Amino acid sequence: MFILVNLKAYPCDPVEVASAARDVAEDSGVRIAVAPQAAHLSRVAETDVETWAQHVSPVEYGSHTGSTLAEAAAEAGATGTLLNHSENRLKLADIDGSMQAAERADLETIVCANNPEQSGAVAALGPDAVAVEPPELIGGDVSVSSADPDIVRDAVDAVTAVDDSVDLFCGAGVSTGDDVTAAADLGAKGILLASGVAKADDPRAALEDLVSNL
Amino acid sequence: MFILVNLKAYPCDPVEVASAARDVAEDSGVRIAVAPQAAHLSRVAETDVETWAQHVSPVEYGSHTGSTLAEAAAEAGATGTLLNHSENRLKLADIDGSMQAAERADLETIVCANNPEQSGAVAALGPDAVAVEPPELIGGDVSVSSADPDIVRDAVDAVTAVDDSVDLFCGAGVSTGDDVTAAADLGAKGILLASGVAKADDPRAALEDLVSNL
Amino acid sequence: MFILVNLKAYPCDPVEVASAARDVAEDSGVRIAVAPQAAHLSRVAETDVETWAQHVSPVEYGSHTGSTLAEAAAEAGATGTLLNHSENRLKLADIDGSMQAAERADLETIVCANNPEQSGAVAALGPDAVAVEPPELIGGDVSVSSADPDIVRDAVDAVTAVDDSVDLFCGAGVSTGDDVTAAADLGAKGILLASGVAKADDPRAALEDLVSNL
Amino acid sequence: MFILVNLKAYPCDPVEVASAARDVAEDSGVRIAVAPQAAHLSRVAETDVETWAQHVSPVEYGSHTGSTLAEAAAEAGATGTLLNHSENRLKLADIDGSMQAAERADLETIVCANNPEQSGAVAALGPDAVAVEPPELIGGDVSVSSADPDIVRDAVDAVTAVDDSVDLFCGAGVSTGDDVTAAADLGAKGILLASGVAKADDPRAALEDLVSNL
Repeated sequence: MFILVNLKAYPCDPVEVASAARDVAEDSGVRIAVAPQAAHLSRVAETDVETWAQHVSPVEYGSHTGSTLAEAAAEAGATGTLLNHSENRLKLADIDGSMQAAERADLETIVCANNPEQSGAVAALGPDAVAVEPPELIGGDVSVSSADPDIVRDAVDAVTAVDDSVDLFCGAGVSTGDDVTAAADLGAKGILLASGVAKADDPRAALEDLVSNL
Repeated sequence: MFILVNLKAYPCDPVEVASAARDVAEDSGVRIAVAPQAAHLSRVAETDVETWAQHVSPVEYGSHTGSTLAEAAAEAGATGTLLNHSENRLKLADIDGSMQAAERADLETIVCANNPEQSGAVAALGPDAVAVEPPELIGGDVSVSSADPDIVRDAVDAVTAVDDSVDLFCGAGVSTGDDVTAAADLGAKGILLASGVAKADDPRAALEDLVSNL
Repeated sequence: MFILVNLKAYPCDPVEVASAARDVAEDSGVRIAVAPQAAHLSRVAETDVETWAQHVSPVEYGSHTGSTLAEAAAEAGATGTLLNHSENRLKLADIDGSMQAAERADLETIVCANNPEQSGAVAALGPDAVAVEPPELIGGDVSVSSADPDIVRDAVDAVTAVDDSVDLFCGAGVSTGDDVTAAADLGAKGILLASGVAKADDPRAALEDLVSNL
Repeated sequence: MFILVNLKAYPCDPVEVASAARDVAEDSGVRIAVAPQAAHLSRVAETDVETWAQHVSPVEYGSHTGSTLAEAAAEAGATGTLLNHSENRLKLADIDGSMQAAERADLETIVCANNPEQSGAVAALGPDAVAVEPPELIGGDVSVSSADPDIVRDAVDAVTAVDDSVDLFCGAGVSTGDDVTAAADLGAKGILLASGVAKADDPRAALEDLVSNL
């Protein structure tokens, strides 16, 4: 199980969350990464937590003002990147371009998708993982296991049918250790979560709960 | 073989091209359709040529100013729609949404893609056909058969691997009857073309040449 | 006072609304126009109502698949176009480009804006009118006069300070004849409205009410 | 005169350019700033050069994955931000939103624009400066003074007519000290430049030449 904590644009202290994630990962043996704002990548990477970008642009070195260059994210310490998050939907051609940029910079990729059909589609582009984000679960308090478990199973099937080397992650609806177990039982190899850790009063305790059943 | 003539925003007379396409389709027995500007759909449909939209928006009936509603395109006479053309790249989620809109309005769909990987990706969404548009052939005078025949074969393979009920069209590099034969030999079930007919001095003669080997 | 009825992507009969608008305009002497889907422009224009596009693309004749060419909208009968509606926000450079396209095709322009600052900004581009759309009034049942009259006054001031030949329209919060009077009292030279007419059981009666105080 | 060096996504060493800019600024007394990739902001700021972001997103703290939060840029050391660069054109509403975000984070703003009309438009939003980027000069080797000096004068006039507290910068066509003098003579209070410094064999020498007449 891989747990990726997306800090979005939250007013949290990225170094505090990163340090907690590093410690819980070490103590539990569970793989945990943190995805901060691009401007915070180097400070987060300095904690030695596994550091991911929230996005990289579909560009190479060149005249691209305001882009997030994959190579710059890597230099700042990122080893992977999210792409096509529901808050940052990309053109299909740009998902492909950003994945090529990530590959050049040796970044792993998790590409988000709305539903099983789109999960199968992005699997065809060969990411490391696809994260399915059922729209009805995004940002809510509903657990994926109680709300719509079939969407995870269907997404696993859709991804596997296209490329069985691509993992399916659960991209929404997980906030507790029981949710993590439920997601794993549905076939998810990883989870994305955000506010459950980043906005928690005690991020370390939230992370410890998440890994408690693993 | 299905020939779709995309009129783009060319300064041609859409009714003249549509009438020629109707006549050549009737005379040759080859399926030929014309995709005009949305504002010209009804005039083109009145010629009785098969009429396609160049795009429909990923929306349902509602508050969507400036959209191209699939149902409105269908009412004006369209029976199919292009999506994600290289001049109108869409977000992956919107390709999915526009395909759902097309389905509600009983429109067939041809979804464009840059390369074999993206062709496989859109095939996972279940369109009627995928049109591969190698960037190096778009808008040029190079024939697909001479320039890069492998991209068509690879796209056929990528699409078939995902869903063998989805046809692969050749979306660029076709302007003569010999190109059509070459595309068919590579496995294409249809072609998209634009300036070769729409900007021809004699659109009828251009269409007759295209179908001459079929 | 100029009343522009935006049909958006509503499931109304565009010809029924257009015919009602034409009749009420003739009977009352008030200028009333209707903006349908691009695919419905020609049918609406055939009623002899003043016909507007909901959007035109910032392009000239050429390779622009899926665009809304200003010249095509004009050929279908449009004599003006909305731009930058809150449901179709444009890049600043594209507002400028679309206005140039509209000018080439002899279309009048009404450019929408969120607030007085943006109203002043678009006035600098020289449209025929700017329609201010306070976000809190869009799509709601609140009247502009009761909710936030100052935004209309401030927008009039902002537009006039930049170019006093540009009219300010009230782009939201108007659904009755009293609202029209209130908007006029605040300095608006026209109004945009949509659901109040397009989704009315009796569009003609809704229009008659709108012009009743004029 | 204010010189802003935009590092875009160039494969330069941002710290080397930043150190040179800091030294030349100190030696010459000319204000010089450097705008790196967001992921490089903190390393650049550590050199004590004046540090700018290339872009900030029109968002507040919240759920905005992949955004460039103004507050995060400021925490990393930025004291200003470019907006609406020709390689990163924004919706008008987002220019306004990004300027509000910049204001909350105490960032100065330079907003780019294509031509005098758009320069006047963005001036209405109240930035610290507008940088006019004539499309024919972007990325080229032509000097603004030789190519089209009137566009700078016209942009100064357009901006001043709307808000005479807003400075006009020359956003393209400057690569030598003589160009800087020419831009100043045309009324520009600052310049943007990129490859002339970032891709120079000797960035320090390039900067020294730029300030040599000031």
